[in-house]
Order: sequence, then structure tokens, then C-alpha cells
Amino acid sequence: MTSTLLSHITGPERLKQLRPDQLSTLTTEIRDFLVDRVCRTGGHLGPNLGVVELTIALHRVFDSPADRIVFDTGHQSYVHKILTGRQAGFDTLRAAGGLAGYPQRGESPHDHVENSHASTALSYADGLAKAQQLLGEQHRRVVAVIGDGALTGGLAWEALNNLGGGGRPVVVVLNDNGRSYDPTVGGLAEHLAALREHRDTGRNLFEDIGFAYLGPVDGHDIAAVEDACRAAVRLHRPVVVHCVTEKGRGYPSAERDEADRMHGIGVIDPATGRPSSASPPSWTSAFGAELAEIGASHPEVVALTAAMLRPVGLHRFAQRFPERVFDVGIAEQHAVTSAAGLAMGGLHPVVCLYATFLNRAIDQVLMDVALHRLPVTFVLDRAGITGPDGPSHHGMWDLALLGAVPGMRVAAPRDTTQLAALLREAVSTQDGPTALRFPKASVGAQIPALNRMDGLDILYRSRSQPLDVLLVSTGVLAAPAVRAAELLSSNDIGVTVVDPRWLLPINPTLIHLASRHRLVLTVEDGVRAGGVGTALAQACTDARVATPVHNLGLPRGFVDHGSRSALLAEHGLTAESIAGTALTLHSTLMAHHPTSLERMPR
Amino acid sequence: MTSTLLSHITGPERLKQLRPDQLSTLTTEIRDFLVDRVCRTGGHLGPNLGVVELTIALHRVFDSPADRIVFDTGHQSYVHKILTGRQAGFDTLRAAGGLAGYPQRGESPHDHVENSHASTALSYADGLAKAQQLLGEQHRRVVAVIGDGALTGGLAWEALNNLGGGGRPVVVVLNDNGRSYDPTVGGLAEHLAALREHRDTGRNLFEDIGFAYLGPVDGHDIAAVEDACRAAVRLHRPVVVHCVTEKGRGYPSAERDEADRMHGIGVIDPATGRPSSASPPSWTSAFGAELAEIGASHPEVVALTAAMLRPVGLHRFAQRFPERVFDVGIAEQHAVTSAAGLAMGGLHPVVCLYATFLNRAIDQVLMDVALHRLPVTFVLDRAGITGPDGPSHHGMWDLALLGAVPGMRVAAPRDTTQLAALLREAVSTQDGPTALRFPKASVGAQIPALNRMDGLDILYRSRSQPLDVLLVSTGVLAAPAVRAAELLSSNDIGVTVVDPRWLLPINPTLIHLASRHRLVLTVEDGVRAGGVGTALAQACTDARVATPVHNLGLPRGFVDHGSRSALLAEHGLTAESIAGTALTLHSTLMAHHPTSLERMPR
Repeated sequence: MTSTLLSHITGPERLKQLRPDQLSTLTTEIRDFLVDRVCRTGGHLGPNLGVVELTIALHRVFDSPADRIVFDTGHQSYVHKILTGRQAGFDTLRAAGGLAGYPQRGESPHDHVENSHASTALSYADGLAKAQQLLGEQHRRVVAVIGDGALTGGLAWEALNNLGGGGRPVVVVLNDNGRSYDPTVGGLAEHLAALREHRDTGRNLFEDIGFAYLGPVDGHDIAAVEDACRAAVRLHRPVVVHCVTEKGRGYPSAERDEADRMHGIGVIDPATGRPSSASPPSWTSAFGAELAEIGASHPEVVALTAAMLRPVGLHRFAQRFPERVFDVGIAEQHAVTSAAGLAMGGLHPVVCLYATFLNRAIDQVLMDVALHRLPVTFVLDRAGITGPDGPSHHGMWDLALLGAVPGMRVAAPRDTTQLAALLREAVSTQDGPTALRFPKASVGAQIPALNRMDGLDILYRSRSQPLDVLLVSTGVLAAPAVRAAELLSSNDIGVTVVDPRWLLPINPTLIHLASRHRLVLTVEDGVRAGGVGTALAQACTDARVATPVHNLGLPRGFVDHGSRSALLAEHGLTAESIAGTALTLHSTLMAHHPTSLERMPR
Repeated sequence: MTSTLLSHITGPERLKQLRPDQLSTLTTEIRDFLVDRVCRTGGHLGPNLGVVELTIALHRVFDSPADRIVFDTGHQSYVHKILTGRQAGFDTLRAAGGLAGYPQRGESPHDHVENSHASTALSYADGLAKAQQLLGEQHRRVVAVIGDGALTGGLAWEALNNLGGGGRPVVVVLNDNGRSYDPTVGGLAEHLAALREHRDTGRNLFEDIGFAYLGPVDGHDIAAVEDACRAAVRLHRPVVVHCVTEKGRGYPSAERDEADRMHGIGVIDPATGRPSSASPPSWTSAFGAELAEIGASHPEVVALTAAMLRPVGLHRFAQRFPERVFDVGIAEQHAVTSAAGLAMGGLHPVVCLYATFLNRAIDQVLMDVALHRLPVTFVLDRAGITGPDGPSHHGMWDLALLGAVPGMRVAAPRDTTQLAALLREAVSTQDGPTALRFPKASVGAQIPALNRMDGLDILYRSRSQPLDVLLVSTGVLAAPAVRAAELLSSNDIGVTVVDPRWLLPINPTLIHLASRHRLVLTVEDGVRAGGVGTALAQACTDARVATPVHNLGLPRGFVDHGSRSALLAEHGLTAESIAGTALTLHSTLMAHHPTSLERMPR
């Protein structure tokens, strides 16, 4: 599908030359392009269909990249990418080495913020405006594009307060489609609805804290958005341009989809909007089903989500117990601290987050939950390598962060049997917080234990007697660990594979097991720095166990986008790599200490 | 000083029986009590002088503890403590084993939230209100007392949005004194000023997002506050009661003190409001002087504070370069992300925070600064053990959290010479973020290096030849480490003391040094889990260096209040303890491996 007009748009300057009738053609071509490409590669569809006209208008009014246009959350930047010379890249959208699903500075000088965590754009804009003022660059304009959902995040409030009080000229384009994944919640949503419907509110919230307010504007009317933006620039002060848009606009399958308007999709059939192939159940759905079951027998269990009811699998629980689930908006901090309040009030909250977004609330986990030893369970979906969403979506810091939280118990189920068991253990824990983590992946086969020792599951034990290598697997990495053990055994290396089930704090029996092997190799898909492997190594050193504890995991670095399997392979977390690493370590050890079982004096 | 009336107030029920004229006497007695006691022990004076009437009114209207009164930040809970049976405890305020400076559940059923980080109370209240509704406890009332300064924090916004949209009855008592440490900033402050002055604003911000609004009320008029609170309860919905108070009220030295109204004080003379004895310069002031110097030669350097200009030592910089310092309110997230924007705009921001408050913004450090490899410097004051402010003020998580941040370089100066050098290195670093940490303490003597190796400073080397023990000190723990080395040397144990200066990432030369010793002991006053010691141990294992790396530091637990020196001693971080630990480790090692220099095969 070649778009005659679109194919000539190689940058914003071309856009500025188009006549109104051409713009209308262009919007149709862009929507066709988006549906065609994103259905083939997967990606964020609904958000981008909603900002076609808005993005065109911005690039006609402003002079990017001299003027800086910062997209909050970034998954609605596809149109921006299309208009800034990156149409060809959409064939490889989100594939390893291909176009990123978020802005990326390496791709274009028109991109500024690579991070996909919400509610940041206004703070960047505040910093940029301050810098431009100090450097005498007042000719440059700063534009922040932020959704109504992202305004529910506290960081956006902090920025609004500073922007409004600071008086510097910044154009805040509020892309109000009434939702993030889910409909926007809270008093703010009501207020925006009143503004959209022109109800008389006296001064509105934005004016209250120092902004000029222009709108509401039909965000699908290019001329209207352009006019409002030009008016905003002329005011030379902080301005909110309130644009009303429709998520999924122009694609019937998205418009019909009340659940999330095709927010993010896998590969789908563009005609039907249905997945091209059936996929096996995900960890998310397995968790959701289990929690709904638990809800029936545990009336004290309540659930919280930060604007992602369905993506974290809570819709089943919500259907059965609607009064026991709370969507707090894109507000992870509040999710955690209100969970602390719920627990103080006598309930057992289950806070369901993507692992990467736990970073947002680690202070609240520490101070509001752990300091009070409250029974709150955190369920971290998309833990470890997530794949095509790139560096800011990998859930790779949760173990390192939670490892520093006093009293926090962290589990990682290796299969759905363990998911059910560990989740039930977690919600039955009274004396402090618990966390479960699992990946963005389909569930795999059950991995039965040979036996359980003090809560640890032994998954594999070589028939040969010498206790050479202890493989400590975490969560779903049990499967490659067991296959690695089989490979090592066939090389006459004695291997034990243990799944600690509860990763943190370190189970003392794990230290004992370590002492009975020549080397330990821990395997986790989180950052190695401060991870479970370091905790075990520290515990062994404390106990004067001299067995070297080597750690496999992710580097203290950012991991690009790509498929989960490819990225796991790249970081040595496949069966073959694990076996290879263990073999190398074992060989060097044997070459130097052929017989002795190393043990530090006690 | 025995207060006749006050001494009879053993709990809130007694308070309810007092006549208006007795209440007036009581407020005087409470203020006298506060000034007398807090001047003797140190503590938070100004905030508590401001809430005498307000707290009395709350305890007369509500039935604590059945009704839950949650104090935001908690340092204004002294009056609450006085009124709930804890007058005697003020003789040991903030001393080890004595009355805590913040609410503490172990002290009283009237206390709920022990955390002193700001902006949390509304979220707790939201959770408590939800729990009470689900459990059918509608007779209980939920009251959150929050300052105007704390409303600048994003978490408070997230909670306001949820409370306003949720409709559950919660009484938010806004204690508006126009400031936190510093005058409250931003558009919100302007808006509150307009409300205080009864300027017509149409609907106000609170009403916009779903609250009823009562006020402004004179927060020093007990009857008026009581009336407003009773009216709020009758509304059966979320209500903001806007109380206008004066920080430091009734104590001339505080009222005169424009800088911070005696927010938190050391031991002072109650008559003059001046410190009883002169104290040597603090790390804070040494840093502040140095940054002001740097500002003159580095026009690109700008500074940010989260509502604590003076406490983080920025007032000198602010005097010289007023346009280059930004107070963003109690908004650490925004401080970090707007710093990212400033750096993108071409400046070098220095973000000055207490170490404990960095927890609030670790996601922003990761995603907004580190992912973009931006030159932002974090200066973490009050790092490590802080002392009398207790568990939530110890800056003990910074090293563990920053240890997981890609590209983050972390330094800890051991003396003011190093402070100056490292700060200059930090602000000259172009390719990514840097952090400096130092304690809440007076600066000590200069500790010269014997020599520098690849950026590491060798501080001590035993004359005896065997390379037994490598002590790796961090920051100010260099002093006890060197003294420990002297003790060990006198026991014929060969010791090297190295100060890595830049703690993270691990300097490869440090691994080489480790390989040339029989054992390594790392010394840090941060949490051991995921700390610098674990990073060195992991680096050694990666490099096949078998020297055991033992870690001294703080436990994965919360550390109570007490003096810094006593708490350091309790956790084995004195010279004697360090020497003792090294001696024990060395003895056991020698008993088993009397000669060999352990080295893992490469």
C-alpha cells in the first residue's frame, strides 16, 4: 500500500505546504498506514489513531526540532514518526534493530524523551523552558503533549504547580480522550468532562494554578488545533490547550472496543481486529483466574490497579467482586499508600502493577508498607525481559529494589501450579509485605519438584554423585535451568537445580545447599547488581561458605527492544548458555582444585 | 515546670470536658511546655507551635483512636502526643529508647503512620475510608491533617483525585501556614493565598475535583475549627477544612525567624532561640560554600531543591545566583525530571536532596536521567545514619538503589578536600549522571592519601609485608577504617585501607587490589543488601578473584532513632568494631589456610 501524498511527506516542512483538502487526504492515508503496519507488527494502535490530526497540527504550527515537542508516555508518537521521515521504519516496528515503539533520540533529532513511563512530559517541559530562558533561547517554543490519563499521576501535578507558578511560556496540549487504558478515574475526570461539555465551572483547575486555558478544541479539526496553538504561543505564558480526541478514531474495530480501544495490540487481522492466531494462556490470565478464585474464600482480599485493570488481569476479579477492586488512575504511589491504608483498616490488598512501574512507588513500598509491616501483596506482571516495548518496559529492577526493603518476601512462580500456591501463601501472610513476579509470556508446562526441602523445590539432581554445580533458578527460568542441567549431566557434571520459590529473603537451606556444591550459578532475569544472586552470595559469605556464587542476569545497563526469547539469549539466559557458563566455570575450577570440596572455615 | 491544667490531660476524653477559658489556659501551657522541652532535646518546634489549637479541636470533635487521625509528615504530632498521655516522654524526645519524633504505633493506639515522608496522609485516609466502608464501620471517621507544603507533592494530588472522585466521607484538614521549610511554591501557593484572602475564585481547586470546601478558618480559633470539623462530618462526603495557621505561633524567636520559623532545631537557649554551644561546620555548609564557588566558574551549573533550600545548603548559591536555583516544592520526582529537562536544554543541574528522599524519585533517576545519559548531579545530604529522626530519615537506601541505575557514578567524599574535588569532577562529567553522598554530621579532619592509584586513594598500608586485609572504606567511614587498620597493624596483621572515592561503578583496580589480599572487608553506612560491598563481591567473582569479600553495613531492616555515633556503634561501624570483625575473619582464615594467597582460577 503506497500512499501517494504521504510518501511525499519526508519531514515537517513538507507538511506546512499542504492545502486543507490535502490534509484531509493525508489523515486518511496515515490511518490506513497505521492500521496496515501495526496490525502486521503489533504495537500501539488506538492512541495513535487518536492523534493524527493533533500531530499534524503541531508540526504545522511549530518548528521541530528547534521547537521541542515532548510526547508524554511516547506510545502515541507513531504519527510524529511518520511525519518526521520514518515511514520506511514501520516495517520493522519494535523488532530487534528496527524502529522503536517510543521516541528514540538515535532515530531522529525530532525525538527528545525515550522513556515510556507516564506523566513526565510536563516536568521535562519545565526544565527545557527554564534552560531556554537562562540561555537566552526565547525564540524556541516548548510543547508538551499529555493525555488526560497521565494527569492523574502525581508527577504531572508537581509539574503543573511549577509551570503554573513559574509563568514561563509552555504550551501544554492536553490530549483528552477520557481514558488511559481504562477510562480516566477520579475527581479530575469529572472536572474534564465538565469542561468538555462547556458546563460553567467558574475558573477551572488549570486557571486556578496559573495557566491560561484554551478550549475545549475538537482534536480532530486540524485548523482548530492550529488556531488554538497559535493563540497559545501569543500569550507568552503557560497555557493548556484542551483538545478532545477519540482513541482509536477512524478504525471501527478500535472504536467498537470498549475495553481499551486497541491500546496495544499483537499481530492482528486488520479486517476483523482479531488476533491472527490463537495464543496459549498468559501468566496474566492465569493470575487473574486464580485471584478471582481466592476472592471467594478470602473476603479480606481487595485488589488495586493503576489504570490497567485488564492488562494486569483483574477484570475477572472485578466482575465477581466489583466493590473490592480499585482503579486509582496512573498513580502507582497512591496505589501503594492507599493499600497501606486498606491494610491498616483490616483488609489484605493485592496491588497489581507492571514490574517496571513498581519503580515509581519504591519509597511508598519502603516507608508506607514495609515500615509498618503491613500485609500487602504486590503482583508484578511483565517482570524481567518484556520484549518489543524496549528499555523502559523491561521489568528488570524489581528484585534489586525489593531486595533492599526490610521484611519484604518475594516469590517467583515457575509454573501455574506454583503461581496458585505462592499467591495463596502471599495473601495468607499476615506479618508484612509479599511480592510475586512473573513475565509477559505464555505459561509453560508444569515443572514438578523431585522433593521439597524447607520450602525449596529440588527440580533436578544428577545421578552421578559429585556435587559439582548448584543451579539456582528463579521463576520461569526453571525450565532452561533444568534443560541446562540435563546438558551438563550428559557431560558428567553433577548438577542440582533448586527453585527457591521465595527468592527473598534468602532461605538458609539454600546456603546449606551451596556449601555442599563446588560452585553455584544463580539465574535471574533481573539486573545482576543487587539482585537475588548477590543476596545469596552475601549470605554465603556471611555464613563462611566459600563456594563461589556466580550470577547470571541482566547487566547494569538498559536493554533494547526485541523479542523476549532473543533478548534472553543475548544475555545468556537460555539452557545452552546456562550450561555453557556452568561448564566453563566448572572446568577452570577443576583444573585448579581437582578434588577438594571448597569450604570457608566457620 | 509543672503545668497544672496540662498535667491533668491524660487523654482526649479529659480534653472534651474543658471550658473555653480553660482551653485558652491550656494552649499557653502547651506552648510553654513545647518550648521548654524541645529547646532542651532538640526537635521540631515551629510546626508544633502552629498546630496547638488545631490539634486540641480535632481531639475534642473526634473520638481517637476509633476515629483515625492521620498526621501527614508527622513532625507536627507533638501536641497530639502531649494530649494522648505522653507528656512524660518529652524528657527523652528523640533519644535512643525515648519518645519518637514522629508518631509511633508502639507508643500509643492514637498513632497510625510512623513515616515522616510528606504527602502520604491523604492516601492512607483513602485506604482507611475504603476499608471502613467494606467492613461496615461507617461510624468511624477518617481525618487527614496535611500542610499546604505537602500538597505540592504528587502523591497528595493522586490521593485528592481519588478521594474527590470516590465520594467517601473523609475530613481533610488543610493546615495552611504558607510554607513547608520554605514558603510554599508554585501555582497552588497562589491559589491558596487567594482563598485565604477570600478573593473570588469561582469554584476552587478542591471543589473542581469533588470536595466540599469549608473555610478559610482561623486555625488558632479552637471553636471555629471545631465548628468546621463538625460541619464537615455532617456532609458525609470528602471535605477540605482549610485552616490558616502560623508556623512558630506564640514563640517570638520562631515568629521572627523568616528562614524556617524554627522548623527543626538542635538544643537551643529558649530565651534567645540561639544554639547553646557553637558547633563546627557541617557537611551541608561545606557543600554549600563549594557549590557557590563552582557556580562562579561554571555558568552552566544550576541547582534544584525540593522545598529545602537552607537545609541542603543552597542559600549561598541562591544569594549569588538567584536565577539559577529552583525550589520545586516537596516534589522530588519533579526535581529529577525537570533536571533532566534542564540538562537536555544544555545546563548541568545539581539536584540537592536528603538521601532518604531520593527514594521518592528513583524511577525518574532511572528513566528520565540515566536512560538519556544526561549530565545531572545528585547531591545526597543526610546519607547513612542520620540519628534522632529515626527509621524514615536514615539515608540508608541510596547506594543500593543507585547501584542498579545504569551509568550512574556515585562518590562519597571522606573529607572536605575530597568533597571539593569530587563535586568538581561531578559537575564536569558530561556523559551521564553522578551522585555525591555525605552524612548529617560535622566535618572532620582531612585524611590525606598515601598515594593515588587509578583514582583510588590508599589511606593506609601496614609496614609488615603480608597483604592480609583490604579495608574498603566509603566516605566518612575512612576515619574509623584507618584507626581500625592501626589497631590491626599493632596485632601484626597487614592491612591496606583504600578509599575508592567513586564507589560505583566498581573501579577495576579495586578488584586487582582485592586479588592481592587474603580477605576484603567493605565498610558502608548503607543497607548491606545490594550495597557497594555486594557490587565489589560480584565484580571479584566475575573476575575469578577468590578473595572473600565481607560486607559491613546496615541490616535489611529499619534503624530506630538515636544518636549517629551510638547507632554506628550498634551496627559495627566504629574503628574498634571494624578491627574486631577483621581480626575474627582473619583468624579463622589463618587457622585453615595459613600460607596460601587464595586466588580463584581465571
